[in-house]
Amino acid sequence: MALIVQKYGGTSVANTERIKNVARRVAEYHRRGDQLVVVVSAMSGVTDGLIKLAKEITPLPNERELDVLLATGEQQTIALTAMALHALGVPAVSLTGAQAGIVTDGVHTKARIRNITPKAVRELLQSGAVVIVAGFQGETPEGEITTLGRGGSDLTAIAMAAALKADLCQIYTDVDGVYTADPRIVPTARKLEEISYDEMLELASLGAKVMQSRSVEFAKKFGVVFEVRSSLNDNPGTIVKEETKSMEGIVVRGVSLDKNQAKVTLVGVPDRPGVAARIFKALGDAAINVDMIVQNISHGDGPPTTDLSFTVDKADLLKARKVIEALQPELGFREVLANENIGKLSIVGVGMKSHTGVAGKMFEVLAREGINIDMISTSEIKISVVIDLARAEQAMRAVHAAFIG
Amino acid sequence: MALIVQKYGGTSVANTERIKNVARRVAEYHRRGDQLVVVVSAMSGVTDGLIKLAKEITPLPNERELDVLLATGEQQTIALTAMALHALGVPAVSLTGAQAGIVTDGVHTKARIRNITPKAVRELLQSGAVVIVAGFQGETPEGEITTLGRGGSDLTAIAMAAALKADLCQIYTDVDGVYTADPRIVPTARKLEEISYDEMLELASLGAKVMQSRSVEFAKKFGVVFEVRSSLNDNPGTIVKEETKSMEGIVVRGVSLDKNQAKVTLVGVPDRPGVAARIFKALGDAAINVDMIVQNISHGDGPPTTDLSFTVDKADLLKARKVIEALQPELGFREVLANENIGKLSIVGVGMKSHTGVAGKMFEVLAREGINIDMISTSEIKISVVIDLARAEQAMRAVHAAFIG
Repeated sequence: MALIVQKYGGTSVANTERIKNVARRVAEYHRRGDQLVVVVSAMSGVTDGLIKLAKEITPLPNERELDVLLATGEQQTIALTAMALHALGVPAVSLTGAQAGIVTDGVHTKARIRNITPKAVRELLQSGAVVIVAGFQGETPEGEITTLGRGGSDLTAIAMAAALKADLCQIYTDVDGVYTADPRIVPTARKLEEISYDEMLELASLGAKVMQSRSVEFAKKFGVVFEVRSSLNDNPGTIVKEETKSMEGIVVRGVSLDKNQAKVTLVGVPDRPGVAARIFKALGDAAINVDMIVQNISHGDGPPTTDLSFTVDKADLLKARKVIEALQPELGFREVLANENIGKLSIVGVGMKSHTGVAGKMFEVLAREGINIDMISTSEIKISVVIDLARAEQAMRAVHAAFIG
Repeated sequence: MALIVQKYGGTSVANTERIKNVARRVAEYHRRGDQLVVVVSAMSGVTDGLIKLAKEITPLPNERELDVLLATGEQQTIALTAMALHALGVPAVSLTGAQAGIVTDGVHTKARIRNITPKAVRELLQSGAVVIVAGFQGETPEGEITTLGRGGSDLTAIAMAAALKADLCQIYTDVDGVYTADPRIVPTARKLEEISYDEMLELASLGAKVMQSRSVEFAKKFGVVFEVRSSLNDNPGTIVKEETKSMEGIVVRGVSLDKNQAKVTLVGVPDRPGVAARIFKALGDAAINVDMIVQNISHGDGPPTTDLSFTVDKADLLKARKVIEALQPELGFREVLANENIGKLSIVGVGMKSHTGVAGKMFEVLAREGINIDMISTSEIKISVVIDLARAEQAMRAVHAAFIG
C-alpha cells in the first residue's frame, strides 16, 4: 500500500470519455489498496474559452478577476472526476485548491505556493476516499483565489507530494516519458528510464516541453521523485530524481533543438565597463527574456571595440531591436544585426562533469557534416551551439547518432 | 446616496454584450453616488451545459459534487462583470458566495441560508468599490460549497439586502414587472405599481413565474422591500412590500392561470377518520406535491363514503396514480379518475379580506360564459377554480375584464 499523487493534464481530461478513462485508472490503483490524491487540470479548451470571454469584455482584464474566472476550469474537472469515480463504486471527494490547503502569495495569474496544509486531504485519505484536487490554483491567507500560471497543475501535484511525503508522484501527460531527442526529428530517439533533475531542467528549458522548469525546480528542492508517463497506455515512463553515481556513466542524456530563438548582434560595441550591464538591464526592464550571451574579445585599431551577440525568443525580436536601437546614441555601437534563421542545438548530461573532450567531439561531428557554428555556450552539464536553421535537424540527428546511437 | 442591491438573472448576463450592458447600468448608479452590491446568476445555458456534462459521466451525480460543479457558473459571471465595470473605470471586486459570507446548511443542491456575515462586502463598499456577488451559492460552516436550488440568485439578493439593511433591492429580469395577468393571454393586462408579499406569493405559486415563492417568503420575513424590473429598459417595475391600508381598496390584484395541473379523484372513499391522512402521507412520501384538495360531504346509503379530489403537477400524475392504486386494498375506495385537461384559474387580492361577494361575482362571470366549475378552493386572499382547459383562457379574459378591466 502506497500513497500516490497522480496528475492528469488537460488532454487527459479533455472530455467526459477521457475523464471516465482517468477514473478507471485511478480505480485500479485504489482497488489494490493504494491511497490516492489525483490532481487535475481544466478540460483542454476550457481555459482558452474563458480567456476569450474575458478578452471580449476588455483587452486587459484585471488579474485578480482573471484568477476568479480561470479557477472555475479546474473546479469543473474535479467535480466531474469525483462523479466518474463514484460511478465505479470508488469513494471520492473533490477539493478546490483552497479547500486542499494550498496557500499562495498574492501575485495573481502567477502566484507562488507558500505552504500546503493538507489536513483535509489527510483526513479524507484516512477515511478511504480518493481525493481529487484542483490543479493550478490556491488561495492567499486572506482568502483570495489565485492561479499558479503555466504548468501550475504539475506544480500542485509535486508540492502536494512533498507536503504529504507521498511514496510516488506520477505526472500523466500525452507523451510516454522523456526522450533522448524529439522522435519526430530523430527516429532513433528512445525513452529514458531515468533522468536527473538538472538534466530535466536543461532539457525543459531547451525546448523538450514535457514540463515547466519551475515544477522540476520545486521537485529538486524538496526531493520529490516523480514519473512522467502517458495517460493513454500502461507503459512505464521516465523517473526524474536526484542524480546518482551510476548516471554519470552516461555522458549525454539527451539532445534538444530550440527553433524558437533569434540572434541579435551588436557590432563595434565600445569595450568599456558597464556597457553590457546597460544593455541587458534595458532588455530586462522591457521583460525580454535573454537566453545565450556571447561576447568576443576586443579587436581593431583605435579605441577597443567588441561584438556582442545574444538570443531572444523570436516573438520578442522586434521589441528587442527597438530597445537596442534606442541605446545607440548613448552607447555608440556601430550597427545591429538580427537573424531569425537559427537553431539552438544542445547536448545535456551530468556525465559531462567527469568526462573530458565532449565539446570537442560535438564540434567535430558538426564539422564533418559541414555545419558552421555561430555561437557557443556551455555549462557544467550542457553544451549549446547556435547554427543555421536550415541545417539544424540534420545536425541534431548527427549529434544524437554520435553520442547516443 | 443609497445602498442598493441589484440582481441580474441568467438572460440579463447571457453573453459578454449583455454583461457590458449590466455594467453600464451599474456604472450609472455608481456615478450618482450609490453604494452597490450586484448579485449575478450564471450566463444562461451555462448551468444546463454543466448538468449535461455531469449526466454524461453518471445518470445520478453525487449532489455535493454537483454543487462544486454548478457553483462555477456564477463564479464565471462575477469575474466577467467585475472586468466589465473596470473597463468603464468603475472599481469593482467579485466575491463568491463563500467569500461574501453566505453560510448555508449542508443540504446540497437546495441548501438554505443560515446567516450572512457581510464583513467583506461592507469593507469593500466602504472602500468605494462595487461588490459583485455570485448568486445561488454559499458554503457550510465546514467550508463545503453549496447551491441554493431554483431561484437561488433572487434569494441571495434578498438575503444580502436584509443583512446589509439595504435601502433598495432591485430584481432585474426579462419582464417589466408583475402584471395583473399574463399579457400573452389577456391583452388588457397592465403592470402593477405595487403588490403585497402575500399577493405576490399567491401569484408566484399559481404560475406567474416571476420569482420563486421562497425568495418572496424570505423578503416578507425580513421586511425587504424589493422591485421587480427589466434589465432591457429603464421603465419602473413593480414594488413588492408589506400590505398597506391603501392596497385593500383594490379587491383583485391579479388573475393567474396554471395549465400545468392534473386532477385526481377518488370515488367512494369510506368516510372514516385517518383516511385522508393516509392518502396524503403516501403522496408526500413519494415527493409528490399536492396543490388543491377538495372533499365533498358524505353521501349514499349504507356505510358513508365521500369523493376526494386533488390536483398535482402533470409530470407527477402517473406516479400519483400508482401511489393511490397501491392504497386501494387498504382503503377500499371504488375507483380513481384522472384528468389532465384542466386549468386552474385564480384571482388574488388582499382587498378580498374586507370585501364580500367576490367569489359570487367570479362564479357569475364564469356562468355567464357557460363555463362549468370542477373544483373550488379559497383562502383569505385568493379564490381558485378548476375548469376545462379548452375554455380556460376565455375564462381568464372574462374574469380579468370583470374585476380589473
